[in-house]
Amino acid sequence: METVSENRVFGGTQGVYRHAASSTNCEMTFALFLPEKAQFGTVPLLWYLSGLTCTHENAMTKAGAQAWCAEAGIAICFPDTSPRGEGVADDDAFDLGKGAGFYVNATQDPWAPHFRMWDYVTDELPALLAEHFPVDADRQSITGHSMGGHGALTAAMRLPGRFQSVSAFAPIAHPTTSDWGRKQFKAYLGEDEATWKEHDATLLMRERGFNGPVLIDQGTDDNFVDLLKPEALAEAMAARRQPGQLRLQKGYDHSYFFMSTFMEEHVAFHAEALHG
Amino acid sequence: METVSENRVFGGTQGVYRHAASSTNCEMTFALFLPEKAQFGTVPLLWYLSGLTCTHENAMTKAGAQAWCAEAGIAICFPDTSPRGEGVADDDAFDLGKGAGFYVNATQDPWAPHFRMWDYVTDELPALLAEHFPVDADRQSITGHSMGGHGALTAAMRLPGRFQSVSAFAPIAHPTTSDWGRKQFKAYLGEDEATWKEHDATLLMRERGFNGPVLIDQGTDDNFVDLLKPEALAEAMAARRQPGQLRLQKGYDHSYFFMSTFMEEHVAFHAEALHG
Repeated sequence: METVSENRVFGGTQGVYRHAASSTNCEMTFALFLPEKAQFGTVPLLWYLSGLTCTHENAMTKAGAQAWCAEAGIAICFPDTSPRGEGVADDDAFDLGKGAGFYVNATQDPWAPHFRMWDYVTDELPALLAEHFPVDADRQSITGHSMGGHGALTAAMRLPGRFQSVSAFAPIAHPTTSDWGRKQFKAYLGEDEATWKEHDATLLMRERGFNGPVLIDQGTDDNFVDLLKPEALAEAMAARRQPGQLRLQKGYDHSYFFMSTFMEEHVAFHAEALHG
Repeated sequence: METVSENRVFGGTQGVYRHAASSTNCEMTFALFLPEKAQFGTVPLLWYLSGLTCTHENAMTKAGAQAWCAEAGIAICFPDTSPRGEGVADDDAFDLGKGAGFYVNATQDPWAPHFRMWDYVTDELPALLAEHFPVDADRQSITGHSMGGHGALTAAMRLPGRFQSVSAFAPIAHPTTSDWGRKQFKAYLGEDEATWKEHDATLLMRERGFNGPVLIDQGTDDNFVDLLKPEALAEAMAARRQPGQLRLQKGYDHSYFFMSTFMEEHVAFHAEALHG
């Protein structure tokens, strides 16, 4: 593992690291913020999964999470959103291929050799962090934005016991019925829609739910809200009596300005679950 | 004036606007955050001048200032750092020409026709904001980073009564003795070094000082510290008995991670002066 950069921020360290990943069969880059408290022992770990077109870098510089994670004594990891490199398949569209891994393991060509972001984010990278950094694998929570909110919600519900809490900013909440989902699942997973169900937060909420608190924020002026389908997830949460809340935030859009505004509350929400 | 974008953030509005500027004789873009409080009356105005290579956009997205300005009920303006456009002179070096206006009025060719950032930032843009936005021209303060810290300090000392307080992050503190300064002043202002003196914070501190509080933060691991010369300004502040403080922050570098860490304290510092 190679250190790309380390910067001091809010008394802790914002690192960027590169490693050869076996799941995605390419070099992967991720960012990890460690609070000052990590100098004295292990700290809980919050995952932040990013949205379409993002790398590890966007949320690291624009979401404003480090201030609150420093205060709460929590590490936060920003993985990349897809495999990268010259030998990795891509598409001209911004919502397929590089920057658009959708947190699934592709079974279809040309994607299958590298697009295994599910394994990378839920298996390989957690193991790598536990080995090399003072993070506590027994105290993890997860959040994300848009495609990353989809990733966070599906990971939390499919891996019971892994995460103490889950939150999301404007998640792609029902991808099997949306153009943000159907196109990508068809490409990565194939025509058999039965294989898509494990990657749809609304369907998982209906059938499993999450054993812990759930917090979802959605801007009322989000220009992509028709693709996100928060109404489907809201209905499923209410029908299931899932403990949690889905908040419609007046006037906010899909940008990092939205996330930065509510980041303090999301980190505090996770901190309560992680330290509780 | 044209609205490029407006995003809701921390209950207020982050706008980006474009206008034809007469001082720089080109189209200029600036960012202005208005807190929610501005819906009900005028609010104080904090200026944030950016460093080399930056546009209005860098600090707007990475410095984390809106959270604290929203809380304090203060507007914050992020001007660009130079004239822009096809007809504007430039240089291959990152530290001369576009993105490197140095907050002076150039008198030398090829820079003189457009590089009048002093007039733009201290005259034309303040008048434009006062005309179009609910900001209180009698309650202004100023801050900045690196080249922008130089701009903030020189503006504050050369315009007595204009600003209630001044702060800076890692300012270019003594440009007449630094490669970040001599090169640019020679290009923009010519060989006569007497014309440079009005643009050197250390020289201005020795001769005038500032009638109000001063706060300067400098990272001890700043990779550009030899060009910034904080020791010269520290000596001048102490010799003058200038009320204020210059803090050396252990382990911090020259990046936005440094600024975002101490932004809360800078905004609170200005808020006290502006609301006091």
